[in-house]
Amino acid sequence: MATNPREKKQIPSVRERVKLQKQAFVQEEILAAATNLFAERSFRDVTIDDIAASLGYTKSVVYYYFKNKNHVLWTIFNRIHDASFQDISTIVELGLPTDRLMREMVRKHTLNVMERTAWTAIYFREEAELNDAQKKMVTGRKRKYEELFRTVYETGVSEGLFRNIATHLAVSSIMGMTNWIHVWYKPDGKLTPDQIADHYGAVLADGYLVKK
Amino acid sequence: MATNPREKKQIPSVRERVKLQKQAFVQEEILAAATNLFAERSFRDVTIDDIAASLGYTKSVVYYYFKNKNHVLWTIFNRIHDASFQDISTIVELGLPTDRLMREMVRKHTLNVMERTAWTAIYFREEAELNDAQKKMVTGRKRKYEELFRTVYETGVSEGLFRNIATHLAVSSIMGMTNWIHVWYKPDGKLTPDQIADHYGAVLADGYLVKK
Repeated sequence: MATNPREKKQIPSVRERVKLQKQAFVQEEILAAATNLFAERSFRDVTIDDIAASLGYTKSVVYYYFKNKNHVLWTIFNRIHDASFQDISTIVELGLPTDRLMREMVRKHTLNVMERTAWTAIYFREEAELNDAQKKMVTGRKRKYEELFRTVYETGVSEGLFRNIATHLAVSSIMGMTNWIHVWYKPDGKLTPDQIADHYGAVLADGYLVKK
Repeated sequence: MATNPREKKQIPSVRERVKLQKQAFVQEEILAAATNLFAERSFRDVTIDDIAASLGYTKSVVYYYFKNKNHVLWTIFNRIHDASFQDISTIVELGLPTDRLMREMVRKHTLNVMERTAWTAIYFREEAELNDAQKKMVTGRKRKYEELFRTVYETGVSEGLFRNIATHLAVSSIMGMTNWIHVWYKPDGKLTPDQIADHYGAVLADGYLVKK
C-alpha cells in the first residue's frame, strides 16, 4: 500500500479538503448559534463560552475560528450586508420596467427582513458595539445598499412614475416601513412572509386610501 | 413681626410651594439630562454620576429624586407614553371624518418622533433594560396606543375609505415607516419636521406611485 507516489500526494489532499469542509461547516455553525444568542439576549449579555456551550463545544473551538467576540459580530455584519446587497443587485440587473423593478426590490428586501429576523435584529440593534472603523464601514455599506433603491427611485421620478419627493425621504420611508417588520414579526403568525410582503408592497406603492 | 397667626401659617406654605416648584424643576432637569445621555451613549454606558455631573450636581441630588437608574429609565418610559397617548387621544376626540382623522393622527405621531428624538430613541432601544413587570406594562401600553390607530383604521375600512388588509399589518406599516424616522432624523437637516411629516403622510395615504 501507498507505494504509488501519486497516491501519497492525493491522500493528504483529500484529507485537507475534508478538513476545510469541516472547518467551513463549524464556522457556519458557530455564526448561526452566535446570531441566535445575540438576537435573543444581546451582544453584551452573551459570552464566547455561551456560544461554545450552546453547541456542546469548549470555547477553544470558537477561538480557533474567531479572534474574539467582536470578530464574530463583525462577521455577522459582513454576511448580512453581502447577502442583501447581492440579492438586490441581482434584481436590478434583470432589466425590468422601473415600477415593476421597485416592487420586486421592496418585495425581496421585505422577505429578507422576515427570513433573517435574528440577523436583522443584530444589524439594527448592535451597531453601537462595533469599533469606530467598523461603524464607518457599515455607514458606507448602508449608503451603497440604499443607493440601489435611490437610483431606481430617481429613474422612476424622471419617468413620471413615482411621486416627486426628496429621494432620501422616499427611500427611507420604504426602508423604515419594511425594516420595522423585524420588531414584531413572528414566524408562527397567521400570515406568511409572502402575504405580508404583498400587503406592504401594495401599501407602499398605492397607499392605504382606497382610490375612487 | 409674625404676630399674626394667619401669617405664621402662610409663610411655610409659600416656602413649601417654592420648594415643590424647585423640586419639580430639578426633577425635569435630571430627566432631560438623563434622556440626552442615554440616547447619546446607551443606558448601560451612563452612570448616575454621569447624569449628576452633566448638571453640576453631586449624585446625592439625583438619588433624592430617583431610587436608582432603572427608576430614571422607567420615568422616561412613562413620560413618553403618557404624552403620546394624550396627543393622539385628543385628536381622536375632535370628531373628524375618518380619512382626515387618520391623516392627523399619522401627522402628530410623525412630528412627535422628530420633536422627541432622544426620548424616542430610548423608547425603541432600551426596552430590554426594564424589568419583567415593566416590560409587560410597556407591551400593554403600546397595544393601547396602537389600538387608537387600529380602531380608526377599521372604521375607515368599514366606510370603504381604507384598503381592506389585516388591521395589525396596516397599523404596523404606518408605525414602522414613521417610527424609523428616529434612526436618521437630524434637527439640522434641510427639511423641516412639517415637510417631512407631509411627505410621509402623502406616501402612506397615496403610495409612491403616481396615479394616472
